[in-house]
Amino acid sequence: MSDAAQLQKVLDRIDADFDSSLERLFTLLRIKSISADPAFAADCRAAADHLATDIATLGLSAEVRPTDGHPAVVAKSNGKSGGGRPHALFYGHYDVQPVDPLNLWHRPPFEPVVADHPDGRKIIVGRGAEDDKGQLMTFVEACRAWKTVTGSLPIDLTIVIEGEEEVGSKNFVPFLEKNKADLSADFALICDTGMWDPATPAITISLRGLVYDEVKIKAANRDLHSGIFGGGAQNPIRVLTRILGGLFDDDGRITIPGFYDGVKDLPPDILAQWKKLDLTPERFLKPIGLSVPAGEKDRLLIEQLSSRPACDVNGIIGGYTGEGSKTVIPAQASAKVSFRLVEGQDPVKIRKAFRDYVTARLPKDCSAEFGDHSSAPAIALDWNMKPLAAARRALTDEWGRETILFGSGASIPIVAEFKNRLGLDTVLVGFGLDDDNIHSPNEKYDLRSFHKGIRSWARILGALAEMPKA
Amino acid sequence: MSDAAQLQKVLDRIDADFDSSLERLFTLLRIKSISADPAFAADCRAAADHLATDIATLGLSAEVRPTDGHPAVVAKSNGKSGGGRPHALFYGHYDVQPVDPLNLWHRPPFEPVVADHPDGRKIIVGRGAEDDKGQLMTFVEACRAWKTVTGSLPIDLTIVIEGEEEVGSKNFVPFLEKNKADLSADFALICDTGMWDPATPAITISLRGLVYDEVKIKAANRDLHSGIFGGGAQNPIRVLTRILGGLFDDDGRITIPGFYDGVKDLPPDILAQWKKLDLTPERFLKPIGLSVPAGEKDRLLIEQLSSRPACDVNGIIGGYTGEGSKTVIPAQASAKVSFRLVEGQDPVKIRKAFRDYVTARLPKDCSAEFGDHSSAPAIALDWNMKPLAAARRALTDEWGRETILFGSGASIPIVAEFKNRLGLDTVLVGFGLDDDNIHSPNEKYDLRSFHKGIRSWARILGALAEMPKA
Repeated sequence: MSDAAQLQKVLDRIDADFDSSLERLFTLLRIKSISADPAFAADCRAAADHLATDIATLGLSAEVRPTDGHPAVVAKSNGKSGGGRPHALFYGHYDVQPVDPLNLWHRPPFEPVVADHPDGRKIIVGRGAEDDKGQLMTFVEACRAWKTVTGSLPIDLTIVIEGEEEVGSKNFVPFLEKNKADLSADFALICDTGMWDPATPAITISLRGLVYDEVKIKAANRDLHSGIFGGGAQNPIRVLTRILGGLFDDDGRITIPGFYDGVKDLPPDILAQWKKLDLTPERFLKPIGLSVPAGEKDRLLIEQLSSRPACDVNGIIGGYTGEGSKTVIPAQASAKVSFRLVEGQDPVKIRKAFRDYVTARLPKDCSAEFGDHSSAPAIALDWNMKPLAAARRALTDEWGRETILFGSGASIPIVAEFKNRLGLDTVLVGFGLDDDNIHSPNEKYDLRSFHKGIRSWARILGALAEMPKA
Repeated sequence: MSDAAQLQKVLDRIDADFDSSLERLFTLLRIKSISADPAFAADCRAAADHLATDIATLGLSAEVRPTDGHPAVVAKSNGKSGGGRPHALFYGHYDVQPVDPLNLWHRPPFEPVVADHPDGRKIIVGRGAEDDKGQLMTFVEACRAWKTVTGSLPIDLTIVIEGEEEVGSKNFVPFLEKNKADLSADFALICDTGMWDPATPAITISLRGLVYDEVKIKAANRDLHSGIFGGGAQNPIRVLTRILGGLFDDDGRITIPGFYDGVKDLPPDILAQWKKLDLTPERFLKPIGLSVPAGEKDRLLIEQLSSRPACDVNGIIGGYTGEGSKTVIPAQASAKVSFRLVEGQDPVKIRKAFRDYVTARLPKDCSAEFGDHSSAPAIALDWNMKPLAAARRALTDEWGRETILFGSGASIPIVAEFKNRLGLDTVLVGFGLDDDNIHSPNEKYDLRSFHKGIRSWARILGALAEMPKA
């Protein structure tokens, strides 16, 4: 049987078996594997057990392995084949975000259903429907179809699925280091990213880094009455808003000295490609109720979102925030501030530059305390690596549209860990859409994303098997 | 018996009866009359009942009268004396602030005790010890001593005690309007202010006004992931901090256009008097852990605190404020902002100027919603009114130090209501100290403030009785 005929049989099998694929996804979605809340530790363990049992049916030796936190699933091809087949490490995560605020969900988050989107699309609704249970199951189901049709997988495979991605993978990274010999492969595959749009497949070829800091400004040694002290006593909210309010100039540039050091402009040919993508405010911002790009005025919106660094205050609190009013000058006020970094920016230097910026602006009576939440450098992947080229061809075949290579504004810190600890480049393929509400109430995954996602991976596995040897 | 001999008998009686005075205060302090929390409505009623019963023993006809909120106590001299005696309206409030955060109290807030301050002072500790139960009881106990010694009070008196001062008196003001004929008097007395310092008595002769506003900035129609949208989507915390951060210039002046319109400089002679008071940062700010006056650089600290308008952000909240981190761009952020006003500033104009200032600085994609919490004009009392002169002499006699006339930075909106609705000028005498922790955990009242406060009022009552007729 020709490779093409064999692939067609695999794809036909996926279509025929799709209702069962969906039922298997629902079984996984019903497990309340919220990693952030210790009350759900047993559910996390149950998700790992379930996945190990399921993945074992693909002909892999699968087991649940402990970490210092929630366990990880590791599954491997039984014995390395002699033929020098490519060996991929597939990574996913079974843990999900908390479901608060629960009252904004239209139905219980762990009772998944297929529903009708107002615009006619069929959608799978539930916590984890996209991030990352739905996405990782596209890969598992693609493997299942290959196994069913051909009796084996077309490439050598190691699957690792962790349970703490949503809480920063802090136990998984040491696990990776400890098991690095056992997790060796030729390259990594991750399904945790998005399409360009609902019709256009995409591979993510860069990821922004992240520096997440917390700053607390302290002034008086206790809360004060603003009638008695107002006008004479320093107010830490005044100091904090003045400092944070100065982070951007009138052109949307971040004002921290040295912030843009090392940041390069896009090569002209890539900028030209991105211009052609025509990511307009109308298209990207209108669905969220906005119309004006908020970043550097002299940059395209797509640059602001992916190739340029950014800063957001993610939270701020100080003084009285309940109902009604209280005439208080609080003793302290604090904010959570994060920076999205691009290639050339050093997270350590950026964090220091931010803290220096704050400290330099403190009036004499105020002090600042800082807290370090997380840090990851930006990642720029090799556009010309062979597995990426193979995946790109396969995606274009499945979707009938040229695959877009684009930079993501988000951070997937594990990609840097794979590079630095295991020496692996990663191919980032995913089928998420901008309106999936990940991390939010009413998370969904398009039924089409799930179905064509499985078909896409089936094609990618075939293409990887045919990849020219190095 | 001469007036002086009679007064001495009253003062001796106060000293002899002081333990009982203290026990009566404790009985009142044990009643949990928190007006802000509906769960304590019965306690508020109990405080009113208790006071009416107690005040009736002074020879006044006392009753609890309903309002649309917590009830008020009204007590009146039985029949107007024929002799054209002066008639005072004494005002106080029996309600207290909530006790949160309870864990910061060293002992239960409604179990008052006399404790030792680290510096050796004896202090009465408990919610309401100063504000306003301790203060109003100095007046009640002074009346009791006069009644006990002479069989009657030296002046005609109406006492009104409300139960909603801490929540803005919004039901008491209509009550005042409805009962204004019944509450007529020659002038008003209030005991809800402070001493100049622990050794120096004071009468407050001006009060700042208050405009308290809330602003909510809205951007996107939902919370966004800062990885996907960061750099391109507007962040309402960025907008809010930029607007609030611009409220002050480098010299501490408020930048809202027109804010200082109508504000007058102090007359040179008063400025000279205030300079002599020598209110240094060392003396006023050091106890709260500060050292640098935060207001207009070209003004004395005492001006910043009392004769100059001020602005404070009393609360701010937006985005994720829990433990750890969340990469969110929130849909909205809000702040509570208040202004202390001085004579010449119109609260309506100031509120509008603030809102115009905010609105003018909104980027295209943001909207602002405002909420009006309260509003009161500044009050400047007549320094030369006779009851004030009488009280000043009496205080100086009791404390052996010249009584200071000073401007308070705080607002007592009822003073404007007395002037506008009842046509009454108010004499503001009180024995609070800067370290009383009113509205805060571990509220206290110096035992000496309570004791000499009673003696002070006894002297003031005597002095008012001897006041030259108009």
